[in-house]
Formats: sequence, C-alpha cells, structure tokens
Amino acid sequence: MNPIGANTWIWISPLTDAGMAELVPKLAARGFDLAELPVENVGDWDPARAAEVLLKHGLGATVCAVMPPGRELVAADRKTIAATQDYLRSCVDAAATVGSGVVAGPLYSSVGRKWRVETAERRKLVRELAANLAPLAEYAGERGVRLAVEPLNRFETSLINTVDQAMEVVEAVESSTLGVLLDTFHMNIEERDLPAAIRSVGNRLFHFHACANDRGAPGADHLGWEGIAVALRDVGYDGAVVIESFTAENDAIATAAAVWRPLAASQDDLAADGLAFLRSALRDA
Amino acid sequence: MNPIGANTWIWISPLTDAGMAELVPKLAARGFDLAELPVENVGDWDPARAAEVLLKHGLGATVCAVMPPGRELVAADRKTIAATQDYLRSCVDAAATVGSGVVAGPLYSSVGRKWRVETAERRKLVRELAANLAPLAEYAGERGVRLAVEPLNRFETSLINTVDQAMEVVEAVESSTLGVLLDTFHMNIEERDLPAAIRSVGNRLFHFHACANDRGAPGADHLGWEGIAVALRDVGYDGAVVIESFTAENDAIATAAAVWRPLAASQDDLAADGLAFLRSALRDA
Repeated sequence: MNPIGANTWIWISPLTDAGMAELVPKLAARGFDLAELPVENVGDWDPARAAEVLLKHGLGATVCAVMPPGRELVAADRKTIAATQDYLRSCVDAAATVGSGVVAGPLYSSVGRKWRVETAERRKLVRELAANLAPLAEYAGERGVRLAVEPLNRFETSLINTVDQAMEVVEAVESSTLGVLLDTFHMNIEERDLPAAIRSVGNRLFHFHACANDRGAPGADHLGWEGIAVALRDVGYDGAVVIESFTAENDAIATAAAVWRPLAASQDDLAADGLAFLRSALRDA
Repeated sequence: MNPIGANTWIWISPLTDAGMAELVPKLAARGFDLAELPVENVGDWDPARAAEVLLKHGLGATVCAVMPPGRELVAADRKTIAATQDYLRSCVDAAATVGSGVVAGPLYSSVGRKWRVETAERRKLVRELAANLAPLAEYAGERGVRLAVEPLNRFETSLINTVDQAMEVVEAVESSTLGVLLDTFHMNIEERDLPAAIRSVGNRLFHFHACANDRGAPGADHLGWEGIAVALRDVGYDGAVVIESFTAENDAIATAAAVWRPLAASQDDLAADGLAFLRSALRDA
C-alpha cells in the first residue's frame, strides 16, 4: 500500500522550523505516513533538525522544489540557470537528509511563466532543459534521490502541460533517476483520460499528488478515483500519494495557487477527509 | 432539442465582417444551428450586415461579450464602469439586430484580474455589481435580450468562480432578464458535481458552453457528458449549446485563453466532432 502524505502548504507558507515542529506531530497523530516539505528558500527549515523531528514522530517525508519567478532551467541566462541548479542541489541534499527518495516539482521553469512555444523552439528548449537536468539527476542519484518533473496546467506554464511533454524531457535525459510527478488537479485540466495518462508514464512515475478537481480533499469531487487507483496499481506504483492543497488564509500561497475560497470546513478536515478517502480507494484497487 | 452553435474563436480573432462572411456559410454547411459572435470591439463587425449574412444562410446567432483589461463593472472608477456599460449596451443592440436572445460572458470584471476578496468586501462588490448590472438587464429586457453571467475558473478571475457566486449576483439584481452562462471547461475546475451545479442554476440557465476538459471537442474527454445532458434536460434548458474553443494559431487569443497546443487535428475537426457528439448526447438524454 502506498504511503500517504500531506503537503504542509495545506496549513502554512513558507515552511519553517517552527512550522515543522507544529505540523510533524499533528500529521503523525492524524495517521499520515509522511509530510511533504516544500523548500521555498534554502534555509527556511533545517534538514538535520527536520530529520530529528520526523524520526521522533515516526513520520516519513518527501521534498518538493518550488519555482517562483527567477528560478529557471531553460530560456534564461547562465547565472540564473546555475543558481537554480544550486537551489535544486540543496533540495536534493535536504531530501537525502530527511530520507525523502524524491525531489518533485516543475523542474523546468518558474510558475506563471508562459509564452507561445513553436515546435522548433520547443525542440531546442527540451534539449536545453535535458542538458541542465542531466547533472542534477546524476547528483540526485549519487545521494539515493530521484527527481520528478511535474506537468502544470496551462495557466501556470506553457512549457510542460501534459504527460507526453514531460516524457519527452525524461527520454531526452536518459537517466534512471529522472521521472515524473503527476498531480490530479493539473491532469484534470490537461489530460482527456487520467488513467491512460498514468499508464503512459509507467515505471517513470516517481511521485503522485492527489487532490479534488477544485484542490479540495480527494474523493468529494468528480474525478474518477477508482480508475486512477487501478492505473496506479497497474503501473506498479508503490511511491507516495500526497494530498497537495493550499490554505486560502495565507496571502502569498493563496495568490500563487489561485485559491480564492476555503476548499473545506477547515484545513484539518481537508487533510483528514482526503486521507480516509485515499486509504480506502487505494485498498479497494 | 437545443440549437447547437460554434464560437468563431475556434478559427479567428477578432471577428470582423470578412470573418463573418467566411464563417457563417461554413457553419451553416457543417450543420450548425448558430454561430456565436464575440464583440471584441464595437465596430469590428457590423450587426446589420451580419444579420443579412445569417439570414441568407439560415443560421442563428448568439452574442458573447468580451472583457479584456479595462472593462470592469466593479471596483473601478465611474468612467471605466460607464464605458463598460456603454460597451455592453452595444452588445445588446448587436444581439437584438442579429436575433440573439442572449449576451453572455464574464459580465463583472476583466479576464485575468484577480485579488483576494474577503467576505465583507465580496458582499460590497456584489452590491456594486448588482447596481451596475440592473440597468443593463433592464435595457436588454426592453430589446428582447437576456444577460448571462459566466463564472470563470480561478486563474481567470477571483470574483465569480462558482455557480453559487454567480447566483448570488443574479439574486441581488432581481431581474427576469439576468441569468447564468455555464461553461464545462470552467465548471470542470471549480464544481465538484457538474450536474448538481446545473440543477442549482435551474431556470436561470440562459446559455451553455460545451467543450472538453482541455478545451477540445466535447466528448473525447473525461467529463461525464451523460449526466450533464440529463441535467440540462431536467432543468428544462432549451437554449443554445455552444462549442467554445480557441485557435492556437492566433497569438492574441491563444495567449488570452492559454491555448498552447492544437486541441484537434484541425479546428474544423474540432467543430465537426463536437457537433456530432453533442447532437447525439443531447438526443440520448
């Protein structure tokens, strides 16, 4: 059975040591298997200290990379790309320290950066991205960590919206430590058949985000969860299934994620309902 | 059976007299009942001339209003709001001339304008919007036209994302000529139960946009079309069902609608496949 996690963005942003101290015991007490830890800025939280708190409460962890404007792996100057690679190496270090097998996120371009990309330009961008991801995949592999590239919906990027586009990058890099993160919220907008999208990623599925079509708790929505759970089983996915949502109470994260209304009676309810639903849906598959 | 239409944005933007002369015969020949005509700028196309072309080819029409930055019915200075009301009155005039019973669109705020709206501010904005919409609903009613307010997804507005938020405005205006346009693309993101959302609008459903979850042809996607068609029948909706999609070939409209890839082998295919599917789905319900 897949370990089930919750992203700390459900409650806070940015994650800090104080937030870690509050949320790790709470998630453990609620029955989660792991906490997903965003690295908004290197140093916001101390990985060694986090590892201790996680160990104390018997909670696992996954790490997600955050790509605000200015973090770019393509179509940017060398200095920006080098700084983004440094940032991602720090994410890998943090993942290794807290025992996360993955660093996941839109590992290509900043969220919100969009421009029309013609076929020839896309080919060039994929080559450039592959060249800039390859050393990171190698760095991650040496530390027992894998990288997972996340397609985002069309309003958040124009570069990698679909599973096919993500797989194009994965195939260009040719590293066993580079794969894909799929998120049901984005897939709901971009993929015509969610189970088929999962199957086309196959054993390159390294991470999975589960939330409702409106970013609320998975289950109380119109997504075909039974088909999704069966597809995860069929591709042999045994990695984490993480509820990623965002609090509407925090100006920065609400605006970044376009969450303009509460998506549950409380954020605790969102997490609890999502956990109960996912346990049941994954067991039934 | 509902008349089925196609929005001219599937092929061109902006719509002009020349575009009208090209697309009206084409849509009639393809078997559509009506063309949906966006008014990007008053004067882009001549309503009297359009009426002649439509009549000649036996095609009906619906009119949609377009809200780029600067067209605002709330939270703007009096001059901006008055100019937007003037624009919408021109849309109503155009609708009356071409025989459209509806002017539909996000009749509240420009597309892409987003800010966090707290409960007290929302109450104030709804009052302001109702006051600014009321004379327009009256103007429309006097000309046999109804206004339909369209909820947009969270990436395009923070003001009216859901059916409940749209109905709050409709109820505040208390006019028989103000109702709601529902669009499956936006509902897919914001509503947990699409048929229930349609039912909650009931007889205030004045217009309907049908497209796939990815803005492609309705039918070849993961939306529950059977339930949608049954809900339309259950609320007694006999208005137009219009395929709204956007060409990826036009820089302005592709960027405005975030369409970064073709959504069909050709735009003609998109329209033809969507039409065939909708005829069948609406008949079966």
